[in-house]
Amino acid sequence: MKNSNFVSFEQVDLQSGFWRERYELNKQVSIKNVRDRFEESHRFDALRFNFLKNGHRPHVFFDSDVAKWMEGVAYLIAKDPDSMREHEALCEELIDCMEAAQRPDGYLNSTFQQIKPDQIFKDRGQHELYCAGHLIEAAVAYHKATGRDRFLKIMERYCDCIERAFITEKTASFVTPGHEEIELALYKLYRHTGNEKYKQMAEFFLTKRSGDFVEYNGGSYNEYSAQDDVDIYHLKDANGHSVRALYLYSGIADMALENGDEVLYNNLETVFEDITERKMYITGGVGSTRIYEGFTVPYDLPNHTAYTESCCAIALMLFASRMRCIAKKAKYGHLMERVLYNSMLSSTSLDGKSFFYENPLEIALEEYNREVASLPKYRERLPITQRLEVFGCSCCPPNINRFFAHLGDYVCVEDTDGLCVEQYIASDLQSSYGTIFIREQYALDGKATVYGKDYSAKQISLRIPEWCREVRATLNGAPVTPELRDGYAYFSVGTEFTISVDFGIALRFVASNPNVRANVGRVALTYGPVVYCLEKADNGAHLNQIEVDPAALCTATLTKDFHKLYSVSMPAYRLEEQQSLYYDDHNNAYTPITAKWIPYFAFANRGESDMLVWVRKLVK
Amino acid sequence: MKNSNFVSFEQVDLQSGFWRERYELNKQVSIKNVRDRFEESHRFDALRFNFLKNGHRPHVFFDSDVAKWMEGVAYLIAKDPDSMREHEALCEELIDCMEAAQRPDGYLNSTFQQIKPDQIFKDRGQHELYCAGHLIEAAVAYHKATGRDRFLKIMERYCDCIERAFITEKTASFVTPGHEEIELALYKLYRHTGNEKYKQMAEFFLTKRSGDFVEYNGGSYNEYSAQDDVDIYHLKDANGHSVRALYLYSGIADMALENGDEVLYNNLETVFEDITERKMYITGGVGSTRIYEGFTVPYDLPNHTAYTESCCAIALMLFASRMRCIAKKAKYGHLMERVLYNSMLSSTSLDGKSFFYENPLEIALEEYNREVASLPKYRERLPITQRLEVFGCSCCPPNINRFFAHLGDYVCVEDTDGLCVEQYIASDLQSSYGTIFIREQYALDGKATVYGKDYSAKQISLRIPEWCREVRATLNGAPVTPELRDGYAYFSVGTEFTISVDFGIALRFVASNPNVRANVGRVALTYGPVVYCLEKADNGAHLNQIEVDPAALCTATLTKDFHKLYSVSMPAYRLEEQQSLYYDDHNNAYTPITAKWIPYFAFANRGESDMLVWVRKLVK
Repeated sequence: MKNSNFVSFEQVDLQSGFWRERYELNKQVSIKNVRDRFEESHRFDALRFNFLKNGHRPHVFFDSDVAKWMEGVAYLIAKDPDSMREHEALCEELIDCMEAAQRPDGYLNSTFQQIKPDQIFKDRGQHELYCAGHLIEAAVAYHKATGRDRFLKIMERYCDCIERAFITEKTASFVTPGHEEIELALYKLYRHTGNEKYKQMAEFFLTKRSGDFVEYNGGSYNEYSAQDDVDIYHLKDANGHSVRALYLYSGIADMALENGDEVLYNNLETVFEDITERKMYITGGVGSTRIYEGFTVPYDLPNHTAYTESCCAIALMLFASRMRCIAKKAKYGHLMERVLYNSMLSSTSLDGKSFFYENPLEIALEEYNREVASLPKYRERLPITQRLEVFGCSCCPPNINRFFAHLGDYVCVEDTDGLCVEQYIASDLQSSYGTIFIREQYALDGKATVYGKDYSAKQISLRIPEWCREVRATLNGAPVTPELRDGYAYFSVGTEFTISVDFGIALRFVASNPNVRANVGRVALTYGPVVYCLEKADNGAHLNQIEVDPAALCTATLTKDFHKLYSVSMPAYRLEEQQSLYYDDHNNAYTPITAKWIPYFAFANRGESDMLVWVRKLVK
Repeated sequence: MKNSNFVSFEQVDLQSGFWRERYELNKQVSIKNVRDRFEESHRFDALRFNFLKNGHRPHVFFDSDVAKWMEGVAYLIAKDPDSMREHEALCEELIDCMEAAQRPDGYLNSTFQQIKPDQIFKDRGQHELYCAGHLIEAAVAYHKATGRDRFLKIMERYCDCIERAFITEKTASFVTPGHEEIELALYKLYRHTGNEKYKQMAEFFLTKRSGDFVEYNGGSYNEYSAQDDVDIYHLKDANGHSVRALYLYSGIADMALENGDEVLYNNLETVFEDITERKMYITGGVGSTRIYEGFTVPYDLPNHTAYTESCCAIALMLFASRMRCIAKKAKYGHLMERVLYNSMLSSTSLDGKSFFYENPLEIALEEYNREVASLPKYRERLPITQRLEVFGCSCCPPNINRFFAHLGDYVCVEDTDGLCVEQYIASDLQSSYGTIFIREQYALDGKATVYGKDYSAKQISLRIPEWCREVRATLNGAPVTPELRDGYAYFSVGTEFTISVDFGIALRFVASNPNVRANVGRVALTYGPVVYCLEKADNGAHLNQIEVDPAALCTATLTKDFHKLYSVSMPAYRLEEQQSLYYDDHNNAYTPITAKWIPYFAFANRGESDMLVWVRKLVK
C-alpha cells in the first residue's frame, strides 16, 4: 500500500470558476441560511441545553446537525477567519454551553441529558455515538482552524466516557452503534492527537459488529441497517442503509490504511465494485429504496423512487477518497467526479438556500404523484420534488455545508512520486513538492492547464476522466504524448512547467446495463462529467412520451445559457395524444420537437417540474 | 330503452370447439377439484354447521364460496342432470343443514351463528349480505334446475329477516353492505319470483349508499371500497375495490333496466367508458393495485403488480351483459369478448385444476421478486406466479365454476327485431324466433357460420369484432354486403338461412395510450380476440431485453402447436449482456433471435416462468 494523501484544503485556494462559485455560495448563503433555519427550529437551543425551558423537545439527531454546521464553519474559519466572526461567536457560545453541560463523567448529549438520562447508552437505535462522532469531527476541525482546544478537550473527555462504557467497563447495553460515524471520527481524532487510544476504540467499533439486532420499523434492525452482522473481514457486497454502510466502509478504509491491511482493502474493493457496477445511479446517487434508505439488489435502480440521499453523495466522497489514499486507481477519482458534478451538486438549489434530501432521477408530478396519491397507505412515498430549506430530519443541509467548506480536500494527491491531480478544480495548491496552479473550464471544454513552480518531484500525474476517449496534451507549449497507465497520464517535468490537457469533451448518449429494467431502451445524455436531464419547464409534461434518435447527437446545439453552463438542444419526437386506450400500433403518430436538456444538478430550480434523466430512444 | 335479453343458457347447447372444451373442463375437472379442496378446507363443514365441533373456525366468506359452487352445480344440473348426481347429493345435504340451522327469524350465516351471534348485522365489513346474495343466486339457480324450492324458501325467509333488520325495523348497525352482491341477487330473486318486495329491497341497498364509513386496514373503509359514498344518480367514474364496484354497477344496471331509468344508464355509460378507455388492461383485467384491490387513476396500469382479480373478469361480464340488455351497442360485446379470451381464461390452468386470483401481465421472477424480497416490509407484494388449487380467500375458483357452467348465457341477445349474435361460440340455440346454429373456429380463423331454422324474424344481426377491419359475408352461399350499423352487421333473412362471415383475423401489434407509462414504447401482439405473451419457457429470462420490430409482423409464423391454438414466431432481437453498469449507447449489441409468443391465457402452465405481454419495440 502506498503512502498517499490528499493535499489538505488548507493548502488549496480555489480560484475563480465553476467550483469556486459553489464554494462561495455555500460560504455566503448556505451556511447562513442553515444557521437561520436551525435557530428557528431550535437546533442550536438543543446544544444550549435550554431546550426544555423553551417548551421544545430536542431530536436525537440535533447534536449531529449542529456539529456538522460547526465543522463547516471551522473549515471556513481556517481559510478566511474574518468572514466567519459571527458564526465563530455562535460556535464559542455553543462550546460554552457544552462545557457547562457536560457531565462529570464526560457524557455529552443534548437529548439524553435533557429528556431521558436513564436511557443513556441503552438503545442502539438512538444515534448517541453518531452524534458523538460528528461532534468529534467538528472539534478536530475547530481546533485546527482556531488553535483553541476547549471543544477538543470536551470531546476527549467524552471519548473517555465512551471508552469506559463500551470497552473497559462494558456498562452500555449494546456494543456497536446503530448508525456508523464514530469510527471515522475516532480515526480523525487519532490522526490529530496521535493518541493510539482513539485508533483502538475505532477498531473496537469496527470489529465488534456481530448482530446486536433490535426491532426497527416492523423489521429487525438488521434488515434496516444491514451492517449489524458485518464481519469486516468477510465483507462481500454493499448492503443496508446506504449512509450507514458508506460511513462504515470509510471507517474500514481508515483501518486498512492505518494498518496496511490488504484483506480489508480487498474486501472494500469488492464492495466498491458492487456499488459502482451494480448499485449506483448514473448521477452517483446510491440508495435505491426509501424503505430502509438503502442499497437493495444488483441493477435495482428505479428512477422516480430513487432515494439517493444527499448524505450518500458525501459519504461516497468520504469512501472513495480514502480508497484513493490506499491505492492509486483512477476509478476512485472517476466516482468522485461523477458524484461532484451530479448527485452532490443536485443537493443544493442554484441560489444556495434550499436542499434536497433525496435526489430522484425522474419526477412525473401528474403521473406518479397522482398514482401514489390514489393508494391510501402509501401516500407521500415519492421523493419531494422541490428543495427545502430545512427538513424534520435535516442531516443533509449541514452535511452539505461542511462538504463544500473543505472542497479543496479533494483536488490533488501527493505520494512518494510526486503530485497527482485527481479533480480538475481551478486552484492554487501548495504541496511538499512545491506549488501548482490548476486552471480550467473543465465542465465547458474538458480542458485543464496545470502550472508548476519550484516543483521538486520528477513527475506529475493527471487522472484521465472516465469519459475521455483520447488525451491531447502539451508540455511547456509543445505537443507531448504522456505515458498513459491505469487511467492516469504521467508527465516528466522540471521545476517549472505548464501542462495543458484536452480530454476531448463531447456529448454522449450513455446506456445502462440491460439488467437495469428501469432504463432499458433509454439513454442518458452526458457532456463530460455532467449528466443531463429534460425538464417540463423546457419540454412540457409527460416526458416519457418524448423519444430521441441517438443519431441526432451530431445535430445537437450547445448553448451557454444556463447558469454559465450549456443547455443542449436536439431534434426529438413526441408521441401524439390518443383518445383510445388501445389501438393498432401503426396508428401511433409523432410530432417532431426540439428537446432541451439542462444539467441534472440544476433541476427543480424553476418551480416544481417534471424531470427525466433516462430518455426513451426512438422506436421503429 | 330496448327490451332485450340474452337467450338463457338453458336454451343454448355448446357444440364442439374451443369453448365447449373449456365448458367440459369446468364440468368434469374444475367443479370436482374445487369440491375436493373445499371439503379439505372445511368450507362445506361451515354450512353443515358442524364446524366448531371439528375444531375449525369458519371464515366470513365461506358461505359465499360454497354458494357459488352450488350455483355452478345447479347450472350443470339444468343442462345434464345425470352427470351431477353426486354433486346434487351434496347440495341436498347442505340444504338440509341450512334448513335445520336457519334461525326462527330467518337469519342464516354459518360464521355468525356459530362464532359470533352477538355480532349479527353489526359490522359492515363482515360480508354477511354478500354471503346472503350468493346464497340467493344459488337458490334461484337450484330451483330453476331442479324444480325443488326448499333452498329458495330458506332464502326467502332470510330475505324477510334482512328486510326487517335493514328496512322495516332498522335494527342493523349499518345501512348498506361493505361488499356489494345482494343488490343483483335481489333483482334475480325478484325476476324469478315476481315478488316486488325484492326489487324494492335491491333499490333500498342501491340508493342508500351515503357514507357508512368504517375503519379498514389503516384507512377508512371508504378509501378501501370507495363505493361507500356513491350517490348512484351522480356516478362519474370507476373507483375503489373493483369487484365491489362492478357488482354495484351491475346492480345499478339492473335497476336502470327494470325502471327504464335513463339517468342511471347514462351514469353507467360514463363509468363503462372510464373503465374501458382508461382503467382496463388489454386482457380485460381491471384492478390496478393490490392495496385496495381496486381501480386507481386513469392510465395507471402497471403490469407486474396488476391485481386484475379473476372475480373482476366475471364481474365485468355481469356488468357488460346487463348494459347490453339496456342498449344495443357493440362495445359491450367487445369487452365481453376481450374478457372471455383473456382475463377470464387465464384464471384457470389448462388442466382445469388450479386457478389464479390475480392475473398479472408481467412476471419477472429474478428481477421483481428479487427486488421485492429485498424490501422487508413489502414482501410478497407481487402476484403469485403459479395457479393454485385453492386460496385462503378463495372467492375466485367457485366463481369461475359458476361462470363456465352458464357460459351459454352470453352468446346471443333477442329483442323485438330478432336475434343478435354477440359472441361467436359454437352452439345450437333455441329462441322465441326459432333455432340458430353457430359454428366457428373463431379464435383460429376469425370466421363463423350461423344457420337459421324456422326463423321467424326478418333480420338477424352479428356483432362485428373490435379487431375486424373488413367484414366479408355470404348469405346462403352468395356474397352479400350486410348493412353495417353501430358495430353490427345486419342481414335480412328468411326462415332458413346460412350466413358465413369472415372478419379478417390477422396478427396485430397493439399500442396503448401514451399516457400509460408502463407500456410506452411497447406493443402487445394480438390475433383476433386473443392477446399473446412471451414466456421464459420459450424465450429465456429477462424478457424486457427482447426487442421486436413491428415490421417483422409480415414474417411471423403461426403454428398450431399450442393446445390447438396458434403460437406465433417472429424474428426479434435480444440485448447482449454487458459487464459495465454504464457505457456508450452505441456499444449496445443485439443478438437476432426468434421470439415465440403464446396466448396470454395459457401462461404459467409449464411451471413458474417469466412472462411479458407488452414487449419493447426495437429502438434505433
